[in-house]
Amino acid sequence: MRVAVIGAAGYAGGELLRLLLSHPDVTDWVATSRSQAGKPVGDVHPQLRSLTDRRFEAVEPAEAARGRDVVFLALEHGESSKVAPALFAGGAGLVVDIAADFRVADEALYAKYYGAHTSPELLPRFRYGLADVEGIRLRGATAIAAPGCFATAAQLALYPLAGIPGLEPALFAVTGSSGAGVQPRPTTHHPARAHNLFAYSVMGHRHEAEVLSNWRRWTGRSDASARLMTHSGPFVRGIHLTLHANGAAGSRAAGELYRSAYAGRPFVRVLEQPPELTHVVGTNEAHIHAVASPDGSEIQVMVVIDNLVKGAGGQAVQAMNLALGIDERRGLVTGGIFPC
Amino acid sequence: MRVAVIGAAGYAGGELLRLLLSHPDVTDWVATSRSQAGKPVGDVHPQLRSLTDRRFEAVEPAEAARGRDVVFLALEHGESSKVAPALFAGGAGLVVDIAADFRVADEALYAKYYGAHTSPELLPRFRYGLADVEGIRLRGATAIAAPGCFATAAQLALYPLAGIPGLEPALFAVTGSSGAGVQPRPTTHHPARAHNLFAYSVMGHRHEAEVLSNWRRWTGRSDASARLMTHSGPFVRGIHLTLHANGAAGSRAAGELYRSAYAGRPFVRVLEQPPELTHVVGTNEAHIHAVASPDGSEIQVMVVIDNLVKGAGGQAVQAMNLALGIDERRGLVTGGIFPC
Amino acid sequence: MRVAVIGAAGYAGGELLRLLLSHPDVTDWVATSRSQAGKPVGDVHPQLRSLTDRRFEAVEPAEAARGRDVVFLALEHGESSKVAPALFAGGAGLVVDIAADFRVADEALYAKYYGAHTSPELLPRFRYGLADVEGIRLRGATAIAAPGCFATAAQLALYPLAGIPGLEPALFAVTGSSGAGVQPRPTTHHPARAHNLFAYSVMGHRHEAEVLSNWRRWTGRSDASARLMTHSGPFVRGIHLTLHANGAAGSRAAGELYRSAYAGRPFVRVLEQPPELTHVVGTNEAHIHAVASPDGSEIQVMVVIDNLVKGAGGQAVQAMNLALGIDERRGLVTGGIFPC
Amino acid sequence: MRVAVIGAAGYAGGELLRLLLSHPDVTDWVATSRSQAGKPVGDVHPQLRSLTDRRFEAVEPAEAARGRDVVFLALEHGESSKVAPALFAGGAGLVVDIAADFRVADEALYAKYYGAHTSPELLPRFRYGLADVEGIRLRGATAIAAPGCFATAAQLALYPLAGIPGLEPALFAVTGSSGAGVQPRPTTHHPARAHNLFAYSVMGHRHEAEVLSNWRRWTGRSDASARLMTHSGPFVRGIHLTLHANGAAGSRAAGELYRSAYAGRPFVRVLEQPPELTHVVGTNEAHIHAVASPDGSEIQVMVVIDNLVKGAGGQAVQAMNLALGIDERRGLVTGGIFPC
Repeated sequence: MRVAVIGAAGYAGGELLRLLLSHPDVTDWVATSRSQAGKPVGDVHPQLRSLTDRRFEAVEPAEAARGRDVVFLALEHGESSKVAPALFAGGAGLVVDIAADFRVADEALYAKYYGAHTSPELLPRFRYGLADVEGIRLRGATAIAAPGCFATAAQLALYPLAGIPGLEPALFAVTGSSGAGVQPRPTTHHPARAHNLFAYSVMGHRHEAEVLSNWRRWTGRSDASARLMTHSGPFVRGIHLTLHANGAAGSRAAGELYRSAYAGRPFVRVLEQPPELTHVVGTNEAHIHAVASPDGSEIQVMVVIDNLVKGAGGQAVQAMNLALGIDERRGLVTGGIFPC
Repeated sequence: MRVAVIGAAGYAGGELLRLLLSHPDVTDWVATSRSQAGKPVGDVHPQLRSLTDRRFEAVEPAEAARGRDVVFLALEHGESSKVAPALFAGGAGLVVDIAADFRVADEALYAKYYGAHTSPELLPRFRYGLADVEGIRLRGATAIAAPGCFATAAQLALYPLAGIPGLEPALFAVTGSSGAGVQPRPTTHHPARAHNLFAYSVMGHRHEAEVLSNWRRWTGRSDASARLMTHSGPFVRGIHLTLHANGAAGSRAAGELYRSAYAGRPFVRVLEQPPELTHVVGTNEAHIHAVASPDGSEIQVMVVIDNLVKGAGGQAVQAMNLALGIDERRGLVTGGIFPC
Repeated sequence: MRVAVIGAAGYAGGELLRLLLSHPDVTDWVATSRSQAGKPVGDVHPQLRSLTDRRFEAVEPAEAARGRDVVFLALEHGESSKVAPALFAGGAGLVVDIAADFRVADEALYAKYYGAHTSPELLPRFRYGLADVEGIRLRGATAIAAPGCFATAAQLALYPLAGIPGLEPALFAVTGSSGAGVQPRPTTHHPARAHNLFAYSVMGHRHEAEVLSNWRRWTGRSDASARLMTHSGPFVRGIHLTLHANGAAGSRAAGELYRSAYAGRPFVRVLEQPPELTHVVGTNEAHIHAVASPDGSEIQVMVVIDNLVKGAGGQAVQAMNLALGIDERRGLVTGGIFPC
Repeated sequence: MRVAVIGAAGYAGGELLRLLLSHPDVTDWVATSRSQAGKPVGDVHPQLRSLTDRRFEAVEPAEAARGRDVVFLALEHGESSKVAPALFAGGAGLVVDIAADFRVADEALYAKYYGAHTSPELLPRFRYGLADVEGIRLRGATAIAAPGCFATAAQLALYPLAGIPGLEPALFAVTGSSGAGVQPRPTTHHPARAHNLFAYSVMGHRHEAEVLSNWRRWTGRSDASARLMTHSGPFVRGIHLTLHANGAAGSRAAGELYRSAYAGRPFVRVLEQPPELTHVVGTNEAHIHAVASPDGSEIQVMVVIDNLVKGAGGQAVQAMNLALGIDERRGLVTGGIFPC
């Protein structure tokens, strides 16, 4: 399998390359970057130094994609829309976009969070790649929009609840600083971030768009709500999400609900105790714990993921595996790094 | 003013001493500790080295309290109940307890979270010392139960909402490791905690007892609920709390609600943007931001406090000031330490 | 006493303001900043919110300095030289510069590390303000160059060794990220810095200039060497420095050497065990431990300071106190913040 | 290849298992632990959850070792000596000990740091497994003492310098908290460690024994010295070491010295700039930078390693590979985790 990663100089791109370079079915790869063209991949992604001596290519996306079985887009939001047409025209077998461009099929909902879509005609082509929920339904897909990191955690918490009537969950999520990308900025300045915790994008984080889109589809309620409250925390990797909902009457077997929903899904682990963020660092796993209040009137669910693996590179590879009909675990079953 | 701090070897005790040693009205002090008796205070609390050369006394609480105007109890939960009777018998003018023993007047509610109370007859004597809400109503109190750290953050978020009918808020809180005290334990082992985030005491943190007690009193609804979801985060100082509630219809001026509720309260600062945890480290301040959703159907409130100051030692001193009728700011207006 | 702080928007400026605003002898103050002019001081330095509502002034340095007893310069390196002449012309009683411009009187040595000096004629006017070593010798000074943060730690380690012949110490120092200032940059990007440690300015950190200048003066050896090896560590505040030297033959009573050298110096604490960095955070103290090898052929010395207090704002205030002939402890004896 | 890991519940044991479970030549494995017997390996080492469902065995070492090609000892210091005889008697093909028991062949030197050796007769049987230096010389070894973590970093810095006459290097090293093991203790209590840095084992860290042993062997000077100064830093993984030595006259091509010494060694990377600790986390690599002062009279060398991989589990596997005559890179070339 020959793959290309377009725009591979960011943190998600680095994680994607880490997984692809060890993927047993990847026989050849190329990585492009406008900002880092010509530099050794290992200078930009030091964790890959022992895996490759290659450099970032300066070629255009369409050129890089030529003859590739799979093309990953790891560009800034809005850039994938510009690049995708040429890739399809060039005959790319499978395009996996890890930006936000094609995550929300509903143009109005998309516009509310992102502004008008520039290539709405491409939207129907993309499948939403929430791999642990979609599973083999992704088989045969030719274009996949990999979910956002917060959105992945949020939806893994929400999906099993869709059958309970009337829930309006609140989702409290905290992300590590790697979620902000490689460019230094005031909110990731070490002196200010090192021991800090603060909310941001209050009442309107963009990942709500894809979360609501699916939550409404799953529940069948077009006005179903689910509030995503995003916070920045003083760690580098991972997202911890806690969902709370009133009204889950009768549902005391919360854990069972989740075990059943994710039965057979290899990367979702439903635990008997609250999950710990560091336990998933470096892995493609989601750890979940769900519990109802003694009177059954409330439900609380905790989810942890590695934002760059399950929330980006790992999920993209898993979706690729599923789309191509190979074992979804290929290249993704590795031990994590703990303690770290 | 002559003060005693009983059981002053813990983190809250250290913070209490830091404030008392710089308090302009404190003319003499004594600190006792069973575990550290005879050791220089500065060996146990290195931050106090430049302030004092004294040692922890080994004397019994009643002995230490003799002739003191104010006695602070910084003992383990359950110990204050044993010690308090002798203090009152000895004529202590003001007792401020920073443990949980006297925070919940409702014996049944107390028992649900802590087990049967061992000195219920003393409960009526104690006033709940939520200083920023109670204010001058604390004047003349002779026994004060200082609120818990999570409970302080939670109640500062809840209080202004009491007049909105039917709210059932969810409170998502993250504490630093200093909240776990000075004894090393697996959850505060650096390799495991350094970049971790996890929930604990799920569906039953003890601070819910005092939170519910007041939330029900303020709302006048004896079955009003408010779920406190406590988490451990990878920082040392502070608590960040985010409250979410559905049903706050019409209340778009959320900030105004808080500014009005805390008008004139010197240590509560209502901000126009989300508060940052590190901005209150070392201070007795609470920073709050409140916002409603565009359609007015949801409210979100963020609160940050220093768990050892506003959540323990600082609030205890503020409550003392109020009880004694002196300016509540005495000894508490200091700059924080930032960045840190 | 009326003071002005020119260029007060940086971390050192913030710490300087924190101390001056609580200094019992400061009756009035003004702070200027080109970049933050017009903004409330508390918006830029959140730790000062409870201390002041004032804003940064936009006035020129000379204007800000008019009628002030003391003027602090907290500008970027190279800017003080441009500003100082006008201050002196305007009759400033005492100028304390916390930048590097006037730290090295030897023009050639200065030039080797910084390039040609732009105002060499002002150099003789400035006294090097290593407060814990200079002490009352600073009395009456009208212009003081406050030492660099690394240089302070280094010289406090070196000073007591000057009498031992032939030492060529190696100094290993690690600084927190606040030493890099308020501007985000790749080396202070949280994902890259959070758990990192790396050397920089290898074989040529600029603070070597002032360290060598004094080391040579103290030893009387014009070619005496002392290598400063600077590292960046994953914490915000403080500098930890370890000195090692071969050849300290006979000097087994290393601790005594330091206790004797710093006898009566209120901010230097010589400990019987290795000092801990966090114990000095927020304080103007230096904690030192010195030990010789069993055979007396080696000496090892550890020093910890808060880089923004003892290494910047605190030392500047201490030097001011000394220059003005008031108790050097005024405004500087506060408890630290621990744990933090 | 069938392997056993005795005492595999510690951090080094976990890292060893992570590598062995992915090692392409390991066909079967067993892990024992007295303290965790019967527990799933993934409950103790959460990073291994996706790799195995097995449990820790309660069997005695000799029993666990029966029929195994390689037996790793990951016991507390002093325990390997008790266990080893039975393993040899039982015919173990290769024993790799990651404790300190057999690292120092010189009984007197050993005794100075550890006390009298309890099984000196076994000492000659063990080879010191500094894999990057020994390389193919380890082929055929039947018992290997894997070096200590600090000692690995120190010796990789020292080895290329052995030919320069008269050097007496000072080595300043900082370790992460994982080096202290899984048992909570005051020095790894998060509130106290989170932003701290302090020296320990001053003038006598035990790893000096093995460092001196080899440094004297390499230099041929039986009294050659090299002082190891160990510090605890506020991070979890890794060791950063900086070596300084006066007297390296003429040796301006310091980098060349290291490139030459480690030519062809797959896990040692000599860089043109100071190495960063986080770049080796999760890998078996050592990154080194060496530079001489402009006048050639001093040399400074920086080394970074992951203390649990290169400093423990990874080096043990590499030594095993070398001893068995298979490619030393087998099972060890994986990407790291960055940022993390």
